[in-house]
Amino acid sequence: MSLDTYPRGVLVPAVTPFHADLSVDAERFVDHCRWLLAEGAKGLAVFGTTSEANALSIAERMELLERLIDGGIAADVLQPGTGCCALPDTVALTKHATQKGCFGVLMLPPFYYKGVSDDGLYASITEVIEPVADERLRIYLYHIPPMAGVGFSLPLIERLLKSHRGIVAGIKDSSGDWKYTQALIEAFPGFEVFPGSETYLLDALRLGGAGCISATANVNVAAMDALIRGYKSPHADGMQRALSAIRAAIQKFPLVPANKAILARIHDDDGWNVVRPPLVPLSPDAKNALFASLDALGFRVAQTVPAR
Amino acid sequence: MSLDTYPRGVLVPAVTPFHADLSVDAERFVDHCRWLLAEGAKGLAVFGTTSEANALSIAERMELLERLIDGGIAADVLQPGTGCCALPDTVALTKHATQKGCFGVLMLPPFYYKGVSDDGLYASITEVIEPVADERLRIYLYHIPPMAGVGFSLPLIERLLKSHRGIVAGIKDSSGDWKYTQALIEAFPGFEVFPGSETYLLDALRLGGAGCISATANVNVAAMDALIRGYKSPHADGMQRALSAIRAAIQKFPLVPANKAILARIHDDDGWNVVRPPLVPLSPDAKNALFASLDALGFRVAQTVPAR
Repeated sequence: MSLDTYPRGVLVPAVTPFHADLSVDAERFVDHCRWLLAEGAKGLAVFGTTSEANALSIAERMELLERLIDGGIAADVLQPGTGCCALPDTVALTKHATQKGCFGVLMLPPFYYKGVSDDGLYASITEVIEPVADERLRIYLYHIPPMAGVGFSLPLIERLLKSHRGIVAGIKDSSGDWKYTQALIEAFPGFEVFPGSETYLLDALRLGGAGCISATANVNVAAMDALIRGYKSPHADGMQRALSAIRAAIQKFPLVPANKAILARIHDDDGWNVVRPPLVPLSPDAKNALFASLDALGFRVAQTVPAR
Repeated sequence: MSLDTYPRGVLVPAVTPFHADLSVDAERFVDHCRWLLAEGAKGLAVFGTTSEANALSIAERMELLERLIDGGIAADVLQPGTGCCALPDTVALTKHATQKGCFGVLMLPPFYYKGVSDDGLYASITEVIEPVADERLRIYLYHIPPMAGVGFSLPLIERLLKSHRGIVAGIKDSSGDWKYTQALIEAFPGFEVFPGSETYLLDALRLGGAGCISATANVNVAAMDALIRGYKSPHADGMQRALSAIRAAIQKFPLVPANKAILARIHDDDGWNVVRPPLVPLSPDAKNALFASLDALGFRVAQTVPAR
């Protein structure tokens, strides 16, 4: 990823494929990530919510990251999720990703305890920065209160930027609250703000947002990338409407199995449908309803489908 | 723990002490657990919410469990928490605890994804039972929707008992909803139901509950044990009122740092106050308020305070 261009573009929270026995299918993961980059992804926010990262062990995450790099994917397009409930795990994953040359890490707050203070969340970030002790470290905060139950307030971000500007580099805002995304972009110039849904992509770009990091980029990244490249064109509003309609159709279903079902259809390979508990695959009826609504929207993957 | 006596008694979710640098203080942990057993605990539900278990790595939890057993604490009084977000972690901890001879494990559901189905939660339990493959395995479900954001419904428990009775042995109900606790005790005879607060202890015992597993048992286990031994006596209601008053005073504050503050006072050792982020210690003002309200209730630790 070139640091000279702005906006950065679409970063994809790549889904993690599993074998039927629930073990990780690393080969399929590397193939999927290569395909996403070919389709227009400017980076890969691997090990996010859509990646079922919290269903993976620390060792599995480290091995998968190494498989990507060994598989020829440049580390500097990678922004792996490293925020865990346990500080030692967050430190280990963050150190590993930074040493491997990833351009940044996407950091969930510790998400077990609810109602925690900004002081506690501040400490949970700073207590990672100190032991990682690597000037290459770039932290992107992962704000997703609907899942995590805790999040990053504006005063907390201001405090983190005051003490760690340059290290605390941006945020993925999956609050689903456009007013919050807007406030983030306006409050902190130079701080990279990625909405967690392409529904807000054009609005964010016009204000100075960095792109987006979206679950459905697993199946529709080319169209998102096209909007980012053309957001100043007269066609931008129409492109946004098309993106939003597809997003709305997909998010009527649980996003992880829905993305995997679409990938199974694209690749004509049911092996894509495996998820780890507590998620479950879409039912046949749900798949049919999802595919029918996508067909009605004329949805198709824009670029090539690699043979497997 | 004798399996021949019922109710089982108080199981304590022992707090995990840390050094000032946030590393685990295993020696203090073993001492604390020994003291709890001397005070009247019938078991130790180590690695629960109060133990900051989700702030510990898998390796730290395994090592602490071994330190307890090596330190002379009988494995058959231990019910370690083993439920993680990631299935491989839950399997590893559950297998380890069972092989070490623990009488059971306390299993949180995977708690990152919200709005998951009973089918998914069912799979998250059964997919542990199969690879652990140990007839000694006894699973106690850990129902704590206020923290986990997901929980175990009555139909889900019924389904688990139908397929895994004997293995799925009981539940800790930290819903804070007495009607739910009551429904659990009444619906599933022989299924051990532990309210997650001593506020419901006497009511639960009278219906056939198994005891309680309560945060504040870290500092008040002797009084809880006394009520369990005397719950048929004419003094039972008065004992319950005293327990409830102390619980109410403590839970005005965040329970983990409040328990640690009380232990620091009992042992006259500020080293007890260290918590891992995202938790923070009580402020001096909060400590003073907590201690004043406990003093007003005549609270004191009932038994001996070991020298350190």
